[in-house]
Amino acid sequence: MRIGIIGTGAVGGYYGALLARNGMDVHFLLKSDYEHVSKYGMMIESKDGDFELPAVRAYNDPAKMPECDLVIVALKTTANHNLPEILPAVARPGGIILVLQNGLGVEADAAAAAPGRCVLGGLCFLCSNKVGPGHIRHLDYGSIRMGAYRPDGKPGGITEQLRKVAHIFSIVGVSVHLTDDLQRARWEKLVWNIPFNGLSVILDSTTKPMIEDPFLAALLESIMKEVICAANACGHDIPDAFAANMMNATRLMADYSPSMKLDYDAGRPMEIDSIYMSPIRVAREAGFLMSRTMVLAGELKFLESRNCKATL
Amino acid sequence: MRIGIIGTGAVGGYYGALLARNGMDVHFLLKSDYEHVSKYGMMIESKDGDFELPAVRAYNDPAKMPECDLVIVALKTTANHNLPEILPAVARPGGIILVLQNGLGVEADAAAAAPGRCVLGGLCFLCSNKVGPGHIRHLDYGSIRMGAYRPDGKPGGITEQLRKVAHIFSIVGVSVHLTDDLQRARWEKLVWNIPFNGLSVILDSTTKPMIEDPFLAALLESIMKEVICAANACGHDIPDAFAANMMNATRLMADYSPSMKLDYDAGRPMEIDSIYMSPIRVAREAGFLMSRTMVLAGELKFLESRNCKATL
Repeated sequence: MRIGIIGTGAVGGYYGALLARNGMDVHFLLKSDYEHVSKYGMMIESKDGDFELPAVRAYNDPAKMPECDLVIVALKTTANHNLPEILPAVARPGGIILVLQNGLGVEADAAAAAPGRCVLGGLCFLCSNKVGPGHIRHLDYGSIRMGAYRPDGKPGGITEQLRKVAHIFSIVGVSVHLTDDLQRARWEKLVWNIPFNGLSVILDSTTKPMIEDPFLAALLESIMKEVICAANACGHDIPDAFAANMMNATRLMADYSPSMKLDYDAGRPMEIDSIYMSPIRVAREAGFLMSRTMVLAGELKFLESRNCKATL
Repeated sequence: MRIGIIGTGAVGGYYGALLARNGMDVHFLLKSDYEHVSKYGMMIESKDGDFELPAVRAYNDPAKMPECDLVIVALKTTANHNLPEILPAVARPGGIILVLQNGLGVEADAAAAAPGRCVLGGLCFLCSNKVGPGHIRHLDYGSIRMGAYRPDGKPGGITEQLRKVAHIFSIVGVSVHLTDDLQRARWEKLVWNIPFNGLSVILDSTTKPMIEDPFLAALLESIMKEVICAANACGHDIPDAFAANMMNATRLMADYSPSMKLDYDAGRPMEIDSIYMSPIRVAREAGFLMSRTMVLAGELKFLESRNCKATL
């Protein structure tokens, strides 16, 4: 099985390197790091043991990549406009595309870019950073929650392709939890991502000071509950108590900089469309107005536009 | 008629100085500026002509002030916990208290602190700053919208006391617009204050960049509409088009730093209680949840608590 990695950053670089280290036939698409990785390979520092890949099959042009049986999309969603150029070249017709991105509607982007492939989605519970070209630091966790995509948003069941991809990851030590309802899993992750990603940027704060402020903790939880209401308006049945559980889990976590804050602080575009605009739109179509989320989205759009001007 | 000014800042200092310059018997309560103003008096720079008051009746202790017939409360609302010490000493029983403060519920604070006085409220359309001890810079405008306070929140009508105070201000060239419905006037001012004060702090921006960003303009207007809905849930009848009118008026205004941003940037406490918490509470009691406003309030409380720690 030939595997293509689209986006060799903290997520794609980490999983791709694990697969390649175990002898699998892995092809990496890179942009800015292409020269460095072609010459020197990749370096993974991991709490499970560091390792190097001195020789890596690196590409800077999707047209030069071989057709792959499994393509893992791990770009930032802000680069999804490039998928129509990339995926038809890299994903074999009838093959599998696994989308490891944040937010809602990301599988639809991939499916629209490359019809005739089987699209799966995955939610990574992974703390890793890219600290240099081809240099990934894996801090903690690493499991993936994975489900099958259906264009109508209904539960996709546990398919043969899901089991196949889960098996491949399990060989290299990544635990995969299969879900028959990918959309619900995406909404569940949004329950955390919508309050914490946005407010960490807006308030220039990591998670700990926010959750330890009693008034802000109440706001975080009320936003979580709004996301749950939105999910349920879209036909899911996430219990209200899920918010309190997420709050408690976050209280036990080490202090953390959400990915959106890392992007903002580095002057990179933020994943506002997939994490905010897309859920707001889907919920509105189901008759639910995400008022609190819309405030965060408006603030983030303003900050992003000023940030991008500043870094021009 | 003896007049007491409680809070000799941008608002109280400006109006008090106008009254004193015209020969009225004005007594100023000061705190940090007391020494300077006792010695050197006050200085008003104004677009209508600069003037000095070399000798000012200044006090740093309300107990030493004479009983006044008209007391003008122009403290920041963050200092309203001091009113029970100040007002009974300064406001003659049966006299008039005019509250020139921001937000909702501020007349109730004054009325509770000094029962048996007639309480009026005023909304100042005034651009002025305190630029030094006893030194006020008046940039533009200056009119006051004034109404009578009733504890039950109902329209108070145009009372004899209202006409009396309006007359006093008109003598010194301040135009006063009387309203029979003070609470409605306060809600109308909140339609501007709630979005612009909060977001100017949260986004570290003056008014112009915010209103010129199309996405943020939509957010500002949606918050305005929420405030209108809250007001109307409380029994008022502000038309929806009031929001669009306010937006257009703001587009024509010169770029402006709302008072809350000036307070925040100077490390002073912000008027979150009177401008946010009090309207949220009153609307909730009327059955309306101000979701968007609650997001701003939560963010502001977090920023304030961090700001105050930083300036300790």
